[in-house]
Formats: sequence, C-alpha cells, structure tokens
Amino acid sequence: MKNKSFIIKGDIIYSDTPEKLLAVKDGYLICKDGISGGVYESLEEIPEIYRDCDLIDYSGKLVIPGLTDLHIHAPQYAYRGIWTDMELIDWLNFHTFPEESRYKDSDYAKRAYEIFVNDIKKTSTTRFCAFSTIHVEATEILMDMVEESGLKAYIGKVNMDRNSPDTLRESTGESYRNTLSWLEDTGKKGYKNVLPILTPRFIPSCTDELMTRLGEIIKDTGIALQSHLSENKGEIEWVGELCPDARFYGDAYDRFNCFGGEGNKTVMAHCVWSSDEEIGLMKKNGVFVAHSPSSNSNIASGIAPVRKFMEAGLNLGLATDVAGGTTLSVMRIMTDAIQVSKLYWRLVDDTKKPLTFPEAFYLATEGGGAFFGKAGSFREGFELDAVVLSEDNIPTVLSDLSLCERLERYVYISGEMPVEHKFVAGEMLF
Amino acid sequence: MKNKSFIIKGDIIYSDTPEKLLAVKDGYLICKDGISGGVYESLEEIPEIYRDCDLIDYSGKLVIPGLTDLHIHAPQYAYRGIWTDMELIDWLNFHTFPEESRYKDSDYAKRAYEIFVNDIKKTSTTRFCAFSTIHVEATEILMDMVEESGLKAYIGKVNMDRNSPDTLRESTGESYRNTLSWLEDTGKKGYKNVLPILTPRFIPSCTDELMTRLGEIIKDTGIALQSHLSENKGEIEWVGELCPDARFYGDAYDRFNCFGGEGNKTVMAHCVWSSDEEIGLMKKNGVFVAHSPSSNSNIASGIAPVRKFMEAGLNLGLATDVAGGTTLSVMRIMTDAIQVSKLYWRLVDDTKKPLTFPEAFYLATEGGGAFFGKAGSFREGFELDAVVLSEDNIPTVLSDLSLCERLERYVYISGEMPVEHKFVAGEMLF
Repeated sequence: MKNKSFIIKGDIIYSDTPEKLLAVKDGYLICKDGISGGVYESLEEIPEIYRDCDLIDYSGKLVIPGLTDLHIHAPQYAYRGIWTDMELIDWLNFHTFPEESRYKDSDYAKRAYEIFVNDIKKTSTTRFCAFSTIHVEATEILMDMVEESGLKAYIGKVNMDRNSPDTLRESTGESYRNTLSWLEDTGKKGYKNVLPILTPRFIPSCTDELMTRLGEIIKDTGIALQSHLSENKGEIEWVGELCPDARFYGDAYDRFNCFGGEGNKTVMAHCVWSSDEEIGLMKKNGVFVAHSPSSNSNIASGIAPVRKFMEAGLNLGLATDVAGGTTLSVMRIMTDAIQVSKLYWRLVDDTKKPLTFPEAFYLATEGGGAFFGKAGSFREGFELDAVVLSEDNIPTVLSDLSLCERLERYVYISGEMPVEHKFVAGEMLF
Repeated sequence: MKNKSFIIKGDIIYSDTPEKLLAVKDGYLICKDGISGGVYESLEEIPEIYRDCDLIDYSGKLVIPGLTDLHIHAPQYAYRGIWTDMELIDWLNFHTFPEESRYKDSDYAKRAYEIFVNDIKKTSTTRFCAFSTIHVEATEILMDMVEESGLKAYIGKVNMDRNSPDTLRESTGESYRNTLSWLEDTGKKGYKNVLPILTPRFIPSCTDELMTRLGEIIKDTGIALQSHLSENKGEIEWVGELCPDARFYGDAYDRFNCFGGEGNKTVMAHCVWSSDEEIGLMKKNGVFVAHSPSSNSNIASGIAPVRKFMEAGLNLGLATDVAGGTTLSVMRIMTDAIQVSKLYWRLVDDTKKPLTFPEAFYLATEGGGAFFGKAGSFREGFELDAVVLSEDNIPTVLSDLSLCERLERYVYISGEMPVEHKFVAGEMLF
C-alpha cells in the first residue's frame, strides 16, 4: 500500500502514560501521510478532514504500536541459543569473535543477514538499533536489506582496534578511515529507513586514539552512537585497568565525547552495574539505556536496576541483545524484564517495585521508540508504526477478557509467533 | 502404531550422567514391548533378538526422551498469561479461586480441559503431575481425556476445607468422602495411563482433621501425594500461625504422614525458601521437588536454590506450574531454570554454581521422570518415551553444529513449537 493515509479499525491499545494503558474497543486509528491522527471511539468522532480515507477493517484484532529493539547484534543471530553456559569475556573470545570474523566473507554475510532480516520482519518490532561487524561491505549489505524490508533502523559498522583476535581487529587508522568511507558510502545511498550509527564495540576493544577520532566525527556530524556499558563485573574491572583516569565506565566514553550530551544521541546497552554517578551522567547527557534482561540472565551478568533508571528519569527502552539474548521477540523481553524486576525486588532491594505489565509495554513502545523521535505511540503527531495481532491460535474458554487482558496474555504466550500485519511510518509491510 | 517393538533411527541424545549428555548421530534406539533396549551406533551392533523389528527412519532429526512436568494446574491453563502482576495469596483470592470455582460446571470443565489436553499433547512433555479442582466430576473428565490422549499422568482432585471462598470449599467430611468415592470410581475404570494422586492444595487450605484423614488414606493404600511447599514468604508465615506446633512448613505435612517416607511417593512444588532442616527431611523421606522457576519469578516468590537441592541429593525435576507459569513447554522451563540459577549465583550465593544445559536437560528428563519409575532415559530397561524434533523452521548458515549444540538451540528457541512425533511407553501418539 503506497497511500499512507488511511483509517485502521480494531481493538486498539497504546500507552496513555508510562503506568497506564489506553484501550479502545472497535476504535479507529487515523494515519495521515504516515503520521498518527489519533484514535477515535466512533466514526462520528473522526474529524472531517480524515473522513474520506480508506478504512482497513481489523475488527476483533488487537492493534498496538510497533515495538523498538534498542540493541541487537545482527551477525550473532546465526548462533542464538548455543554456547549459553558462559560469561561475557569467555563467550566473546571463544565464540563471538570467531563467528563475527566470518563476515569478512560477504557471501556468508548475505546468507546470514537474509535470515536475520526475514525473521525480524515477522516480529512485532518495527524499529531497532543493530551492531553489524567491523566489515564495511557486510555492514552495507545488512543496511541495504533492512532498507528494502521497510523496517526503520540505526545500523553500525563496529570499531575494534585492540584486545581482539587478528581476524577481527583493525589498526586504528584503518578503523577510522573505514568508518569515514562507510559514512560517505551510506550518505550517498539516500536511505529512507536506515541510518548509520557509530559503534565502538566497547572500551576494551577501542584504543584512546580511536575513541578520540570517533568523538571528533560526532562533533563534526552529530551522528548517533551505540555501545555497551557496565554489563559484567569482570568487564568493569578491566575497563578500570585500561582507563585509570576514568572515574567510572561511562566516564571512559564521556572523555571522548562519546556519551551523549549537547543533543548527541547515544544508546548504551545493559548498565547492570551502573553506579549512581554513572546514572547521574546518563541523565545529564540524555543517554538512552537499552535494558536487556534476557541477555543479562543468560550471560550471568545480573539484573539491571530498571526501577532506579525510571526514578532517575533516564531515557529507557528494551532490547533483545541477540545473541546474549536468544530471541528476536521484544514481547518476550517485556516479560523477562518484568520477571527479573520481581526477582530484583525480592532478592536485592525491596524498595524498588517490580515493573508492571503496562510499564513494560511503555518501555517496549514509546520508551525505546523515543530514540527514533516521535515513535511508539498512537497519539497524534507520532510516526504511525502499528502491528496487528491474531489470537486465532489461542483457543480459550474465557469469553469476557478485556482488551488489556488479551494483550497481556498475547505478550506472555506468543513467543516467536509472527504478527499478522505490520505498518511502519504509515507504510504497510504486510 | 500398536506394535510396541521397533527401532528408531535418528540423532539421539539423552543423559549419560546428570552432568553429561550422550549423543549418537545416526543412532538406533531399540524399543521392545514399550521398554528401551538401549541405543546403538550401527545396525551391526544391534543384538540379534531385535534385528527383525520395524525400523522407523527419522534420520537427521533430533530424538530425545520425553520430558516430565512435575507440577501443573490443569484448570489454570485457561487463564495463563493474565493477571500476572500479583503475589501468591492475592492471586489466589482474586483470580485463581473464582476461576477454579467454574469447574463445578462439568460442561465448562470439558471445554477447558479439551484445550489443555490437546495443547499439552503437542509439547515435548510425555508425563506430568496435575492438580484439577475440588470437583470430582470435572477431575474424572480430565482423567478420562488424559487416559485417551496416551500421555502418562498423576491427576489429583484437590482438597480444600478452610480459607477458601464458599464456592471452592468443602466441609471436612465432604472432602474426605468425595476423595474416597473418587478413588473408588477411578479404581474401577482400569486406566492404563492415568493414576490418582492425593492433592491437599496446601496447608492453609486444609484443616488438621482433613490432613489426618488424608494421611490415613496414604497409610491404607500407599497412594502418592502432591502439594505446595515454602513458595512465598507470606505463605510460610501464615503456615507458622496455622500450625504453631510444626517446626517448619514441611513438618506440617509430615506430622500427618503426608510428606513421603516409608516408600510413599510425594512431590512438593517450589521449595523456594526451604530451610536446611526442611531439605534434610525431604532427603530423608525421598520427597521430590518440583522446581518451578517461571512461576517463582512471575509471582515474585524468589529463586529456589536448585544447586543446594542437587548437592543434598534430593529427588528433583522441573515444572511449568501453569498458571503461575505461563507456558506448557518444559523446554522453556529448562532455560528459565538455567537463567535464574545464574542470577542466584550472581546475586545470592556465589558458592552455588549455575545449572548447566546438560544438568537442566537431566532434570527435565530423568530427574522428573523418576517420579514415574524408570522414565526419562533411553538406557536399557527404561519405559520408552521419545519425542522427535524438527529443525526445519530454524533457517541457519551454520553447517557444523554438533548434536548437543542443535539440541541446546532447539530448547532455547523452540518456544511453543509442537514436536514432530511422540512416543509414550512405546506407544506412538503421532
């Protein structure tokens, strides 16, 4: 459908506030030139100017905003669900780095990324921030495919110039030059859906000199940045040794202009062990946290203090972190986030209330969507991303469920179930 | 297939020890009259006496023992995945008890249990221990359906004579008499697959007098028993108030001959907060623990110390605990058990090593299977339960995965994916 103005009829749910869902049975969702015109309870309420738009009838189906995955490693999707019995640094060295080295072979990259893009397209995700590998050609293959898919994404060529195997390490100059030529290339392509994002893997993989140059690129271009922060205790100690002058891990980025601030968009994955000082700097600099509960459990990192982030008013969304996480489903991440927040409350700090279902939904939609501007809501003025959910294969004897109960059930039990229809910025993908 | 003697060819995996998987590529699994004759690497190795059995060729597919779900509430399947933002006692009072009251209506029970049995039949589970409700008729409807399905199960009419709503509370005499008549009824039915099991809901729902009578039934008949133990801190305090003479929660069962011992088979769900003394008594009495990690996270109970149970040598298996858990998939429970054990190690006690994948697999197969006698393994002499897994819809670029890696991946990402074929005690269900 090329016409980006239409009306969707269905059982519509989105966040009214971070704590509260807004549900409209048999409601009407307006899309005008790809932008939401709001949700109305009846045809009569719809403003005159929208009345002649086509109506797409999804009566009886749940319609929710598309979800955002704030942190995923596209090349790691190939080996999701294996080698799970390890902690971060061993897992990187024994499995992740050798596997990522394969993406030097663009043919391999093409076959692997085809599966990744095909699979993520089916999920409830409409926007995501992805790492590729250090390889420019493979990165552009991925960007081309995502552009073609209609999904919106920030995608980053990874920078690594130390503490990496020979097969996955650039010289500082090479890393810098390749980044510049990659930015130039992608700038010429005129992408509508995909944007490049600077992607120093993490402090242990990047020399001070490389970080300095990346920080300068940000100063020159205002490009966004994604990386990892305070995931694992061993990792944090290592950063302390590598950067003796940094006051804390986040400061090791900040010293190089790689930690938000001055309107620079930055997202950091994990923040499991972020100190109050680090959280304070994230708040000050507007850094987004990509909360990755599945990955943090799988790699035995711990539980990120998500309530603390919320109390501090941080920008915050959810992330699958494949292949630390094993699923592309941000719905599964919602339930994992709730579960670990309950364990955190029970076992670590009983002043930090567990996430509620509406709160997890907010993080998965508007929370993460904010990294892309106005996305993740059906409120007027937001880019219209919507997914339509079929409950046809959930047989039930319960006939009196509310819309919110139906949504909660769907999120808890849908697993990898494909969504039925997907719209991104008013474009119908299927 | 009524002939229970055959040979299955496939990529066969089962536990060699609790810590180690045994994998045979293109192996041959013998079934003789429903009992395993062991696994062989080549046709030539197969003993003469089995050579003329039919060969069922599942080459290239994973073949593993059927899984056991040691604790599930069949009537709660209808509302899995909703009302998740609550702790145990509120969740029981506001939702579970009203819903279970509906099973007084046998027509409702029939419709709900049909969905439950149909869905659990598709999973990797071949054996399970289920609660029904207090209602005898509905319980027998469930038992008849499971008998017909070919799955093996212990199923229990629930006993409740206090602290329950009027709609879900029996008088003591009624509870006792109904239990006796239910046992008499089911005794006459000549079930092959289904056995009754005594099911006092938990101490707060059962008076001392009722528990005394149930203990006498055990003394008279040797019938097995299932219940709940030390799930939630508030619950444990309540038991302390209700049973001031009991030294600990488990002792409140033991005083009534309802806690194993003398060859009596007992399984207790949860044991999240079991003291060393309670664990000691479970060991002494041979009580099985039904470890329910998903449920324990969902209802914010905590993390059961599974490594401690293993070190103490307890009988131990896994459980979905629907609808505290939201899934029928014991595979999902395996990965949840691993994840929470990693969090326990990281956040609670770093002397308790996380579960490994092979250990979780052992618990899901032989560990829980032991409640049914010799089940959950392909070693010679075990009842032959097998499930055949299709990886057809897991597209991949990795061509060199080992059998164990393929199994690990399947378990982590299969979600609610139905198994391709299922055998229970040598009977092919599909």
